[in-house]
Amino acid sequence: MKIVALAGGVGGAKLLDGLANCLAPEDLTAIVNTGDDFDFFGLRICPDLDTVCYTFAGISNPETGWGRSAETWRVLENIKKLGGPDWFRLGDSDLATHLERTRRLKLGETLSCITSHFCHSWGIRVNVIPMSDSIVRTIVFTDQLGPLPFQEYFVLHRCQPVVKSFSFEGIQAAQAAPKVLDLIYEADYVIFCPSNPWVSIDPILNVNGICESLHGKKVIAVSPLIGGDAVKGPASKMFTEMGIKPSAIAVADHYRSFITGFVLDHQDSYEKDQIYSWGIIPFETDILMKDQGDRQRLANEILTFCRDL
Amino acid sequence: MKIVALAGGVGGAKLLDGLANCLAPEDLTAIVNTGDDFDFFGLRICPDLDTVCYTFAGISNPETGWGRSAETWRVLENIKKLGGPDWFRLGDSDLATHLERTRRLKLGETLSCITSHFCHSWGIRVNVIPMSDSIVRTIVFTDQLGPLPFQEYFVLHRCQPVVKSFSFEGIQAAQAAPKVLDLIYEADYVIFCPSNPWVSIDPILNVNGICESLHGKKVIAVSPLIGGDAVKGPASKMFTEMGIKPSAIAVADHYRSFITGFVLDHQDSYEKDQIYSWGIIPFETDILMKDQGDRQRLANEILTFCRDL
Repeated sequence: MKIVALAGGVGGAKLLDGLANCLAPEDLTAIVNTGDDFDFFGLRICPDLDTVCYTFAGISNPETGWGRSAETWRVLENIKKLGGPDWFRLGDSDLATHLERTRRLKLGETLSCITSHFCHSWGIRVNVIPMSDSIVRTIVFTDQLGPLPFQEYFVLHRCQPVVKSFSFEGIQAAQAAPKVLDLIYEADYVIFCPSNPWVSIDPILNVNGICESLHGKKVIAVSPLIGGDAVKGPASKMFTEMGIKPSAIAVADHYRSFITGFVLDHQDSYEKDQIYSWGIIPFETDILMKDQGDRQRLANEILTFCRDL
Repeated sequence: MKIVALAGGVGGAKLLDGLANCLAPEDLTAIVNTGDDFDFFGLRICPDLDTVCYTFAGISNPETGWGRSAETWRVLENIKKLGGPDWFRLGDSDLATHLERTRRLKLGETLSCITSHFCHSWGIRVNVIPMSDSIVRTIVFTDQLGPLPFQEYFVLHRCQPVVKSFSFEGIQAAQAAPKVLDLIYEADYVIFCPSNPWVSIDPILNVNGICESLHGKKVIAVSPLIGGDAVKGPASKMFTEMGIKPSAIAVADHYRSFITGFVLDHQDSYEKDQIYSWGIIPFETDILMKDQGDRQRLANEILTFCRDL
């Protein structure tokens, strides 16, 4: 059974990790959002891609949900002493990734090639592909501060500004990274991981060709909301600010034109009928992934749900 | 007594440190070679400038002669795991300097402004100025490997290739950094520190205006060679490969058109007469700086020599 999963950072990475434990590596492809990427100190930083890779490699920081475990902060401490910006927390080990990635990008290598090389170095056998080798930048239009690059909204302003809309700068020219469309074509099922629909999955869906490639595919989305709240991140707040009551239903509605199945939490059981009425098969389980066991259990349940669709 | 000192890395930094302990900070200016600067991982690295600043700040590594004390290597270890280049040893604390400098350069700040800002952050009160805000690159022409950027010759090839000549790329367009010419004009004495004449002092002397500004000044050079050998670095080897017997005399001859006085080691006492015959006043002492005490003693002796000229 070949699976392609679209993912953002933390939540997506957890489910991907679970799926990797249930499938042969050649049967799982992760297509990762790069709309959050940005340049800091002239270095290309790809937060979602790194979270996914660090998680697969077993070197992610389980407490923060970003960055690396057993991290040190020597560089950042010294940057701070020189009066440099320290709002984005660059750990020493993490920084090596950004430095080497940027060095290779400057030599003309593509982000997908670099990611593949890094995965090899980190012992990752699952296929991890950035959604595009072109630069796409998620811009968050806010009430008071106007348009903000995603990381400024997310980290510098801690998601405080009220969101009005989003745009994905560069998306019109962005082609899917090599093999992405073929892999979707060959996939038995496509899974939208429990990532933020607005800023993690939407950028991927807006890359040229990806939307079209999903026509006729069996697509299953996993809700990132439980009882109207996001496990992590601003998804719930974003729904509210966009004038939509945050709920599993709202997520299913957001993905309505794409999905065959929808995975939601027991807490949101009462929303199943509505989703079913749209011709989408709901599947109810415990979707909170507190530990490694949860990841694998949920992945297994989702794969069984896929087979039964 | 106002002193301007021209310096490269290690040897120059030691004497500067001694001078800083003998003079009021406003009376000492260090004009530092930037011909060794290079870009690595897209970061601007200024080895001589950093060695001088780290030495003044008391955070230099006394064992290596470059980099910082109590350094850690987390970033470099992780770059190595990703297959990135590690021939230039980037320590974690040191890296912060390069990151913040590069960030500011990209914002349009000049290297001299950035250096001044860094000095303030590190508590350095002496005036440290890069020779120029323009990019100058020392190229070492070698027998077998052709032209090599200085750091590739120095670090990657460990000074092994036989040297044929040097050039300073960009020197024709390089103006002296702001205040450099005024400070030389106002100086009572200019000291050429015991740095490599070919690749540390010559680049500075070749910056537009600096050579001319020295006319009529009392200039004292300190030999970087003792008994024909360099305390550190390839100076002696370079003299030989350029067809000149390495000696204090050879250094004095190299600087002949500039200097009023010349400081050489007791070991080279027998060379004094020759130097004197050129109209240059020699001063003989123990010029090896093994510890902090030596730095201050030598600096004091040189200042006394200056006054007596």
